[in-house]
Amino acid sequence: MIDIDRIRADTPAAERLAYLHNAGAALMPAAVVAAMKGHIDLESEIGGYAAADREARRLDSVYGSVGRLLNAAPDEIALLENATIAWQMAFYALSFRKGDRILTAEAEYAANYVAFLQVARRTGAVIEVVPSDPRGELDIHALERMIDERVKLIAITWVPTNGGLVNPAAAVGKIARAHGIPYLLDACQAVGQMAVDVEAIGCDMLSATGRKFLRGPRGTGFLYVRRELLQRLEPPMIDHFAAPWVSRDQYRLRDDARRFETWENNYAARLGLGAAVDYALDIGMGAIEQRCRLLADRLRGGLASVRGITIRDLGRTPGAIVSFTMDGYEADAIVGSAAAAGITIGASHPSSTRIDAEIRALPPLVRASPHYYNTEAEIDRLIGHLAGLTPR
Amino acid sequence: MIDIDRIRADTPAAERLAYLHNAGAALMPAAVVAAMKGHIDLESEIGGYAAADREARRLDSVYGSVGRLLNAAPDEIALLENATIAWQMAFYALSFRKGDRILTAEAEYAANYVAFLQVARRTGAVIEVVPSDPRGELDIHALERMIDERVKLIAITWVPTNGGLVNPAAAVGKIARAHGIPYLLDACQAVGQMAVDVEAIGCDMLSATGRKFLRGPRGTGFLYVRRELLQRLEPPMIDHFAAPWVSRDQYRLRDDARRFETWENNYAARLGLGAAVDYALDIGMGAIEQRCRLLADRLRGGLASVRGITIRDLGRTPGAIVSFTMDGYEADAIVGSAAAAGITIGASHPSSTRIDAEIRALPPLVRASPHYYNTEAEIDRLIGHLAGLTPR
Repeated sequence: MIDIDRIRADTPAAERLAYLHNAGAALMPAAVVAAMKGHIDLESEIGGYAAADREARRLDSVYGSVGRLLNAAPDEIALLENATIAWQMAFYALSFRKGDRILTAEAEYAANYVAFLQVARRTGAVIEVVPSDPRGELDIHALERMIDERVKLIAITWVPTNGGLVNPAAAVGKIARAHGIPYLLDACQAVGQMAVDVEAIGCDMLSATGRKFLRGPRGTGFLYVRRELLQRLEPPMIDHFAAPWVSRDQYRLRDDARRFETWENNYAARLGLGAAVDYALDIGMGAIEQRCRLLADRLRGGLASVRGITIRDLGRTPGAIVSFTMDGYEADAIVGSAAAAGITIGASHPSSTRIDAEIRALPPLVRASPHYYNTEAEIDRLIGHLAGLTPR
Repeated sequence: MIDIDRIRADTPAAERLAYLHNAGAALMPAAVVAAMKGHIDLESEIGGYAAADREARRLDSVYGSVGRLLNAAPDEIALLENATIAWQMAFYALSFRKGDRILTAEAEYAANYVAFLQVARRTGAVIEVVPSDPRGELDIHALERMIDERVKLIAITWVPTNGGLVNPAAAVGKIARAHGIPYLLDACQAVGQMAVDVEAIGCDMLSATGRKFLRGPRGTGFLYVRRELLQRLEPPMIDHFAAPWVSRDQYRLRDDARRFETWENNYAARLGLGAAVDYALDIGMGAIEQRCRLLADRLRGGLASVRGITIRDLGRTPGAIVSFTMDGYEADAIVGSAAAAGITIGASHPSSTRIDAEIRALPPLVRASPHYYNTEAEIDRLIGHLAGLTPR
């Protein structure tokens, strides 16, 4: 059981705001804020290098924390400035030749898709989009039929940015493993909202952010790379931390996933990320996932009865992102009117998931994303607010 | 004139520590700490996205501040997680073919050199080291003689990490411009210690960090790219911020230097960087440079009279990094003994500037790096401390 009162006490802004924008950037628990500010203070007291030295053990433990979160080993984790850079360091480390196929899903995130396009242009690789099944999830049977020896990568987003869809990441993993195809999973919106187990999923690489459902700082992200693959991946760019300069004409890549990092880092942000992961693990990802679903389902249930609202979520068991439109209202207008009522939500624009948006002819969507620290009353406030808007 | 009392009041730790490690990470002024902590508080009060929106104007002004620092336009500046990533985004954007020549200097930084090695291995480009003149500076006449049509890049470190050397960056720029060769300048140790003017230097790309002589936060860096070159450089990796996804099979690179950035950032650190740059500009880079030289020269003068000490700095007019060895003492032992006496200095290991270290047969060096906020008395404390060590 989650102790909501304690958790809300750790989240002072929750008293003033119905904060339902956790798919954007969640409210940080006080422990995360304290970890960052405490380290900044230490840096200003003894200098940035001495501060990192003094906190070396805690900084090192962040790898263990992220590893525990993902069921991975600490040496399979790299800490990076954001989820995009994490994803890029893995993706751009792969080699493609003319005719190689990259398989992705319909709701793939824009950041990843433009990188596919760049690499396709450079190498002659082709991007192919696995169709969705009637429920809107990546169609596992279609994926299976698309596999051949030219498929060099399967790269999908587990929980797309534009709604409740939870793609069948583990079923994709089974196919990838059966055929020996590298599998890169964008878990940006999944991590922190649901249990993540890279062994159960069978992905080879996984990227995620700190700021969303993990409740960590902005400007933090991480990459998991399975140990077996790690040794075969040369990072697209290196410095002397990733690859020490061992003799005049030689560098030697690190053995661990930190070969994807650079020497200099924002240690305050890293400690904040570690505090966020520990906070989530302390509560328990099972309990968090359950409560996220409960609140999101409550929201969907309530919205379904508001005149003019169309819920846009896909998939059999949608997660904590609730997407919808309302007749006669632009998404941004709804976000603004909610903000004026002390309710923080967001919008998702078609350009962030262009292929899915085109297939479904989606306008900008309203995106409300509750988290375990929200209350049923806050969900009902949003429903009530929307129900109170003048029908148009 | 620099108001030392006011500046030291803005730097509370200066009362307790003789902090002479500004080539590592300087002490941040209170305004930098306040900018960061204030933004973290705002994020925890209203959420990370709303906080960035509210501070949009201040965040945007960081580009202007960095531009003013370098005599560049705001749209020629990209803000990145560190100087290495800034340098990498420029370097890896360049194309090389077999036989292309990359010219660099003897004291090139390890981070850059391993990247040269990686690209040389990938492309068949060759790395050539311009020899130094008898004073230890990059030999301009030798550089001139090495130029031919196969030289596709001149990439040097202005102020190397391992001592007082200030390479003749502007003289290099004249040659680069005369021959139309792209010129990438690593200004990591120069920015914040001396006036930097990209027009006077004639570099096409310049990378630097926030945490050293600029007195900014760890985990901040920036890249300058001259507007004319910018349009021809496709970043080595892109996301939808660098290159919006404009139609299913097309992205369009941004026109400005932010094509080298990604969408997500640590905004608290950015505001800290902006505060640091504004603080330096407020004092004036001319006055800062003058005082840095004054204190470094005082230190060199004092060290010259301490038995057993050899100053290792190169160049005609060495800057604020003072490097030396002491007979019978390892560099790390001296750093440790100074630390115990409340004096913060650092060490520079041969692997960070391997070619220069091999040519000069350098052991690890002690590195003391005063800044304008230091006092003459602090310099004398370090000299006295070293003079008091038992000769060995």
